[in-house]
Formats: sequence, structure tokens, C-alpha cells
Amino acid sequence: MPRPLILVTNDDGLFAPGIRALVKVAAEFGEIVIVAPNSPQSGQGHAVTLESPLRINRVNTFGDIEAYECTGTPVDCVKLAKHLVLRGRKVNLCLSGINHGSNSSINIIYSGTMSAAMEASIEGIDSIGFSLLDFSFDADFESSEFYVRHIIEKTLRHGLTHTNLLNVNIPKLKKSEIRGIRVCRQAEGRWQEEFMEGTDPRGQKYYWLTGKFVTRDALEDTDEWALHNGYISVVPSGHNLTRYQAIEPLRFLENV
Amino acid sequence: MPRPLILVTNDDGLFAPGIRALVKVAAEFGEIVIVAPNSPQSGQGHAVTLESPLRINRVNTFGDIEAYECTGTPVDCVKLAKHLVLRGRKVNLCLSGINHGSNSSINIIYSGTMSAAMEASIEGIDSIGFSLLDFSFDADFESSEFYVRHIIEKTLRHGLTHTNLLNVNIPKLKKSEIRGIRVCRQAEGRWQEEFMEGTDPRGQKYYWLTGKFVTRDALEDTDEWALHNGYISVVPSGHNLTRYQAIEPLRFLENV
Repeated sequence: MPRPLILVTNDDGLFAPGIRALVKVAAEFGEIVIVAPNSPQSGQGHAVTLESPLRINRVNTFGDIEAYECTGTPVDCVKLAKHLVLRGRKVNLCLSGINHGSNSSINIIYSGTMSAAMEASIEGIDSIGFSLLDFSFDADFESSEFYVRHIIEKTLRHGLTHTNLLNVNIPKLKKSEIRGIRVCRQAEGRWQEEFMEGTDPRGQKYYWLTGKFVTRDALEDTDEWALHNGYISVVPSGHNLTRYQAIEPLRFLENV
Repeated sequence: MPRPLILVTNDDGLFAPGIRALVKVAAEFGEIVIVAPNSPQSGQGHAVTLESPLRINRVNTFGDIEAYECTGTPVDCVKLAKHLVLRGRKVNLCLSGINHGSNSSINIIYSGTMSAAMEASIEGIDSIGFSLLDFSFDADFESSEFYVRHIIEKTLRHGLTHTNLLNVNIPKLKKSEIRGIRVCRQAEGRWQEEFMEGTDPRGQKYYWLTGKFVTRDALEDTDEWALHNGYISVVPSGHNLTRYQAIEPLRFLENV
């Protein structure tokens, strides 16, 4: 049996320690091809580049492993990977991350990491986004590596069922402190925005997005509960946004 | 009773005819505040601007109507509107569009128009994104206006139930040819990408995203069916991506 072909990407760019940790583990399982942004793309959501051309270049950042840097968004990277770099080849798994920072709850919507994984899942590829709850550049990925290995191994062996996209978040804890893995649902939450206000060198006002994530939904079946209680959260996710239960109640809109 | 406060935004920018058509109709129902991008932002998905500051300026593009141009993405516009322009005021409805081009099926994921509406819905505001299936700048919004008026009126009167986000797409037809409105589900579909390949003035290769939308899911309860059969599609949508039916089957991942 040929070794699985695994596409790796992220949103923090090719030089982030998180993608190095992910590649190190993933390479134990198959042939790796990396296509990642050449600059940080946090918060890019499912953005694609329509108004300008993209560049993609082979790089030797990962030694013998085939790797490319791309000028676009994380979703652009997956599109370029599938349709240019890996044209015609069957990709067995797409891995995105390990993100420096949480993508739990509503953050899946804003996340470049998760949008890259989702783009691959739309193409029918089993896809997993990994995020560590530590924003710092020198985050410690040691305990992450153990669980990332476990989840990749189980996913390759069993395949993903009922959905092909997983949102995995890892608490900032030592390996001995992590209590295990919870398959759970996305907690309801939102960002309580504030804008840092300032004046630029030319005297013009500017506003810089900041804020605090808040959730009032920390029931035991949510990712927020899992992460606050020392578990790794795994949320099976999808790209169909239909609210089926609202279709019948909204039929009144059809009466013109 | 005070008139409803309606926030209007889009992703094609303040000068697009689509937003003029939307403002014209919306102004019949309430007080309008417009916060829209100062440049086209198609395909921006749920991107937010984290790495740079934002600018926002009052403009008189819409005469007496309070309007602002913003340097960010459509989601940035909604965040600035809620937390800066309309701080402390209760917004009754958010309208996004009318987009020049379809946002049916999977396009909701890539769409700046729909992401702006979704951002407002996350804030608890009833929100509707409108799109006309005509990419051209001089698209004819006459039949759109009739149905946009109908949907705004019904939504303000009844409120949205079971979800607070609607994805409305309008076929490119004369008013007399439109057969009505269908409340339906998002069809499964994807983009069959291709990249236009070229060489820039400095001899460097570039790739420009293009492609064709394909769906094999055109059952009668989908938005694709509705649009192909002369109906306006209304898809009740949400921001929780959990695939609940996959939670139990994936419990095997918990066995470390």
C-alpha cells in the first residue's frame, strides 16, 4: 500500500513553530506536501484572493520535504495545492496548524487555520485543524505533538465518519496535566469588541481591532467546557450553514 | 413607536449600484446608517483586519443618510458600526448587499456580503444578505427592489424565528418572469478551480484564481433548484458549524 499523501498548511506562515511541530508528527505517517502562506494570515476566515494574482514558490525550509510558500490566504494555499501542486493526485488527509492561539467556539468562523481545513473538506478530503491555546511565538508544542499523533493515527486508520472536518483545540498545559480528549460541540460565544483608538504620524485617527471572547454557553458538551477543564476538544464541523429547523417557520415569507 | 434602526453594508463598496438599490428600499422602513468598505471586498469571507489599523470616514455619498466608508473588510465594517458608529444604540435589522453576483450554495462561505450579515447575526441582530445573479456593474435591480421590499417588510413585522440570518438570492429575470419566493436549504456544491497562468512584466509567473461552480445537488428543496426555476431563494442560515450527528460516531478518538 502506498503511504498516505498528506497536505499540510496553516495561517501563521511557513516560519511558525506550530507548522514545524505538525510536519514533524505528520511525516511519521505519510508523504508530506506543504503549501503555506509566506506571511501571517490570522483572522483571514474563508477569504480568497480575486482581485490580484498569486505567486507560489518552492522553498527548502523543510529540508527534503516538498514545500511551497504562497502569497495568498490559507484558502488560496489549499486551492493552489489541490489544483496546481498536487493536480490529479489523491490527497488522503489535510492538516492545518498547529495554530498559535485558540480556534474554539465562534473562532472557527474567523480562523484562517480552520478555513484552510474546511476548504480541503469541501473538496472531499478528510481534514483536521489543530490549535494550541497559546498565542506566543515560542509556545511549547510538546504535549500537542503527542495528541496530534494520536488523532492523525486514528483518523488515518478509521477515516472520518458523518463529517470530514475536525476542529481540534489543545489547552496550554503540560502533557501530565491534560486529562484526555472530548468530542464535543461548538459553544455559543462572541467577541466583545473594542477598538484601540490612536492618531497616526499625519494626525489622522485610526482604530485597531481588539476585544475579549465571551461565552455564556459553557455546558459540559461544549468545546469551551472541555478546554477549561483540561481536555482537548474535537468538534466535528461542516460547511453547510442551513438552519433546517427554521425552514418551515419562515414559509410566511413565500406569501407575496 | 420609534422607526426601526437599520444598518446597511455590502462587499462591493459604497459606489456599487447594488447598495444604492438596497438603501432606496430600506429607507422606506426606518432610519438608515450605512457603513461600507471603500473598495471592493468580494471573496473576503469572514476575514477581519488584525495586522493593521482601520480608518473610517463620514461621507455624503447618500445625501442626508448617515454614511461611512471604512478601509477594512465587510466584517470589519459591521464591527466598527456596532461598536463605534452605533455604540449603545439598538439595531433592529442589518441588511447587506445587494451583491452583484450569486451567493447561493457554498458561496455563502466565501462571500463578504453574507459574512457581514452573519457578523451582525452573531451580535443578535436580525440580518439579511441579498444577492442578484448578475455580476455586471450596470445590473438591473428593478425586480430585486420589489422582492427586497417584501422581505424587509415581512421580517420587520414578524421578526426572524429559529434563526436570525437569511441568505437571499435573486435570479436575473424581469419582475414578470420571477415565479415567487422559496424558503429552502443550501445546495451542496463546490468550485472547480482553475488558475489562469501568466507571466508578469518582470518575467515572474503568476496564477489568478478562476473556476466554475458545480453542483450535483439540485433537488427541489435547494436554493440552486429555486434559482434555476425562476424563484428567489431564501436560506435560513447560522454560524454554528457543529455536525451533531458526527459526535457519537467519533467517540473512538477519545480512547488515548
